[in-house]
Amino acid sequence: MTATTYTNRQWIYARQPTGRVGADHYTLRETPIDDRLAEGEVLLGARYLSVDPYMRVQQHTRRTYDAPHPLGIVQQGGAVSQVLASSSAALRPGDWVLGYNGWQTHDKCHASQLHKLDPAAAPVTSALGVLGMPGRTAWFGLMEAGRPRPGDTLVVSGAAGAVGSLVAQFGKRAGCRVIGIAGGPAKCAWLTGRLGLDGAVDYKAFASTEALAAEVARQSGGVDIYFDNVGGAVSDAVIPLIKLRARIVVCGTISQYEGGIDAPELAPRVLQHLLFQRATAQGILARDFVHRMDELRTVVAPWVRSGEVFLDETVVEGFERLPHALNMLFEGANTGKLLVKVA
Amino acid sequence: MTATTYTNRQWIYARQPTGRVGADHYTLRETPIDDRLAEGEVLLGARYLSVDPYMRVQQHTRRTYDAPHPLGIVQQGGAVSQVLASSSAALRPGDWVLGYNGWQTHDKCHASQLHKLDPAAAPVTSALGVLGMPGRTAWFGLMEAGRPRPGDTLVVSGAAGAVGSLVAQFGKRAGCRVIGIAGGPAKCAWLTGRLGLDGAVDYKAFASTEALAAEVARQSGGVDIYFDNVGGAVSDAVIPLIKLRARIVVCGTISQYEGGIDAPELAPRVLQHLLFQRATAQGILARDFVHRMDELRTVVAPWVRSGEVFLDETVVEGFERLPHALNMLFEGANTGKLLVKVA
Repeated sequence: MTATTYTNRQWIYARQPTGRVGADHYTLRETPIDDRLAEGEVLLGARYLSVDPYMRVQQHTRRTYDAPHPLGIVQQGGAVSQVLASSSAALRPGDWVLGYNGWQTHDKCHASQLHKLDPAAAPVTSALGVLGMPGRTAWFGLMEAGRPRPGDTLVVSGAAGAVGSLVAQFGKRAGCRVIGIAGGPAKCAWLTGRLGLDGAVDYKAFASTEALAAEVARQSGGVDIYFDNVGGAVSDAVIPLIKLRARIVVCGTISQYEGGIDAPELAPRVLQHLLFQRATAQGILARDFVHRMDELRTVVAPWVRSGEVFLDETVVEGFERLPHALNMLFEGANTGKLLVKVA
Repeated sequence: MTATTYTNRQWIYARQPTGRVGADHYTLRETPIDDRLAEGEVLLGARYLSVDPYMRVQQHTRRTYDAPHPLGIVQQGGAVSQVLASSSAALRPGDWVLGYNGWQTHDKCHASQLHKLDPAAAPVTSALGVLGMPGRTAWFGLMEAGRPRPGDTLVVSGAAGAVGSLVAQFGKRAGCRVIGIAGGPAKCAWLTGRLGLDGAVDYKAFASTEALAAEVARQSGGVDIYFDNVGGAVSDAVIPLIKLRARIVVCGTISQYEGGIDAPELAPRVLQHLLFQRATAQGILARDFVHRMDELRTVVAPWVRSGEVFLDETVVEGFERLPHALNMLFEGANTGKLLVKVA
């Protein structure tokens, strides 16, 4: 039997960005890949590739959650693929899978490294969204670190993003008043309209931290839970508004990802507010809750099926646009989960 | 029966400080006070008066833990007194009591507002120290927010102070490696000598945050628990050294009490470190654990009696030196608990 050979297109992480990431920092490489497989292996054809803020965090010089992403290899990341060929009894050609295969059109890996998806149960892209890493981050971040109680006021920054829009919905279901912070009037209208939040603040509409803080204070009346995806000046405005025994969930600091990790900005000290309010700030990361994915599937998946919880997708068409799509995250160009469709 | 009249000397909080607090901000007032008492009341003669960093926090314009301390009234604070006259069945002349009577030589109050002390069980001053507010802060702050485990590395700032020196000892008993940070070689020698800590860092010996951080890193090898009494540049050095799942206990930020509460300093952002290390920072305050004083008396008091845990005292003699004594806290002039002896 002769082997079938495919052209594997790969985005190689080639140069470390110091500011905004984009096409300059990647090289497109084409290499042949065939369907000769070791026992248990499969050949995958990528269908949807994920772009996530954490990718930019891993491009800093200093150790963050991880050592820096190595240069000269395929950009790592989540992928939803279809099986093209299989020597595993667990997977057949045509099957949909979730893997951590990175930015490439094809990959070979052992079936044990993949999670099989049921397209009849949920759209396959949900494995990169509400039923995947962003959903896990939102659910466990809010429930474990945010500890919402009915009547609490929850302020979410980056509220129109993948994690933020889920946190906002989970907060509403927990009985919280939810105020979303996002960039621009269109996102804010979406937050109070489609998402049904109790308020929305367009951070771009305010010239100073003080003015932004006054509007968040006006809409929130004080903050019991601050779920923070953005950090920076938005957090400078929100944190002084925390109430007694508030919980701050440090989920992301996307405003700082274009250099502020290696060389932290100077900003007003905030820890004193934790003291005055006997409040807690906690950093959370999706990986710490992988072992509890059963809860996400038991509790959240039925809400997704019924439509009670949803995650909008911004889908960029074309493998070649991956670096551009990553860049879009930092321009706030997405609502909900940003994905690249390969074909 | 004729009344006996005493001269009550009172330190009135008269002017709000903007920087260092001292005699300029207080007025000494003398008023007569007699021993005519309502049913249940006692007349007290103060013996030891407390000076504590929180007093300076309450002198800021903005709301902190509390509304600002009112001007024109006696400086509030803890006091150990003896009963001079009593119309309460619960207290007799000569009895020792703890109360919140403030900076005055005499006071009348209802017996129900006082806690009777047993001088045979523990030195009466311990009610203002290891068995009082500072001990409660240290014990519950470390146990509840620090959550020490054997083998953890605990770094304590302000380690030679009242709360810090107790936290360090409680940490050792919990099986932690304990590194203390304090100002000057004498305090550091006391930390590694008398207190038996595993290391001590003299923060005054380093010209930059980076140099201080390098020494804390060298001695600690990374930080599982940071019990912070000082904030400011010391915390800027320590927080980036936290390890995975570290706990930061925000107990005090004494470096910021001379203006930095009303107008926060600019400093490098730190919340990203909580994210990278999935760490927690929690503000704690003694008052939140008043209902659990029984634990302090059950667990800690026997260690104090046996001498296994101790709190040094720096005793300033003379009621007239109270404002000066408060100032001493911010000059780092005390080791252990700073008290003023009235007589």
